[in-house]
Amino acid sequence: MLVLHHLGKSQSERIVWLLEELGLPYELVHHTRDATTMLSPPALQALHPLGAAPVIVDDGLMLAESGAIVQYLLGRYGGDSRLAPAPDHPDFAPYLYWFHFANGNLQAHMGRNMMLKRLDLPADDPVLVSARGRLDRALRLMDDRLAASPFLAGQALTAADIMTVFTLTTMRYFYPLDLAPYPAIRAYLQRIGGLDGYRRAMAKGDPGMPLLLD
Amino acid sequence: MLVLHHLGKSQSERIVWLLEELGLPYELVHHTRDATTMLSPPALQALHPLGAAPVIVDDGLMLAESGAIVQYLLGRYGGDSRLAPAPDHPDFAPYLYWFHFANGNLQAHMGRNMMLKRLDLPADDPVLVSARGRLDRALRLMDDRLAASPFLAGQALTAADIMTVFTLTTMRYFYPLDLAPYPAIRAYLQRIGGLDGYRRAMAKGDPGMPLLLD
Repeated sequence: MLVLHHLGKSQSERIVWLLEELGLPYELVHHTRDATTMLSPPALQALHPLGAAPVIVDDGLMLAESGAIVQYLLGRYGGDSRLAPAPDHPDFAPYLYWFHFANGNLQAHMGRNMMLKRLDLPADDPVLVSARGRLDRALRLMDDRLAASPFLAGQALTAADIMTVFTLTTMRYFYPLDLAPYPAIRAYLQRIGGLDGYRRAMAKGDPGMPLLLD
Repeated sequence: MLVLHHLGKSQSERIVWLLEELGLPYELVHHTRDATTMLSPPALQALHPLGAAPVIVDDGLMLAESGAIVQYLLGRYGGDSRLAPAPDHPDFAPYLYWFHFANGNLQAHMGRNMMLKRLDLPADDPVLVSARGRLDRALRLMDDRLAASPFLAGQALTAADIMTVFTLTTMRYFYPLDLAPYPAIRAYLQRIGGLDGYRRAMAKGDPGMPLLLD
């Protein structure tokens, strides 16, 4: 059976959610961050050289990197899943754009801002101002998209949403970001929070954790 | 005809290279960074809200984000390209891993270190030490892989290499990184530099620019 190594409060919630949407059987192995450093624990460091989560083990094959795992599971077990529009589908290009935007842009800018926060720079430091500006532009682009479309790729939930939602929700435990300037993102997160697959995944992956959907 | 908007000395060289490997006809539109700020010029800002490069225009459809463009071109025009191993190919999982590692890990850590360099922090600053450590671990993982395999996915060039090489070469114009500790990466870059498709792409995209293959 497919095994998913899940680190609590981390981007591996993406894979729990995907597996719930696909309805695949899997064994969920829970890992917890070090309470002081917030780093991943020795068990994950032993599993993968970067101590990364998520990691899946499928028929003896080990795979990390959430974008890779999503494409692997969709390619191997997704069939012609609605979660990944095919090349002849009108949502193919926007699907790919937002799928890659998740790590290539949004998560990258959140990560940089989270790192800069540790340095406690003055508010007018040009590096900080630039990093905040880039994050704001990424969020505004997403807000414009979600004002016009219920999900990122179009009318239906896809793996682009599954890649994106963590950065807008659980990651705010580490970088508190006020979403008030982005009303369409907030409305989107409310829609996501109403999805059975998402709720099941979060209850299994991080039981009891309040969801930062607002 | 497919149009590629290419920003000189940028990650859009990935798409020039992919198009050369696929042998697709395309129109290459050159853009140049502002000589002082190194930011993308007004023409790119007018084309896309983030001023991003690469951007392609295909039959009226505009698409940015290099990972998305690579998957789009492979999905629409790649056929059963050797550049993207299929789900039943033994290189499928490593292909996906390194494809997503490029932006999700290596490029993210290079970008953070490049940003921190602007702050001129003391060498023992813990944020700087952590950022450098993470980049080093990413490079060591890649070095181990390339000591055992001529290309990232396996025996043959794939889009995972096309996503990765920019960060190890041209990006070092902005973040000078010594590759001496990573001999397998250096040998890999020499192999890449010998490929006709790569040489054609670099000559078209950034004519006259010395290639940082060492």
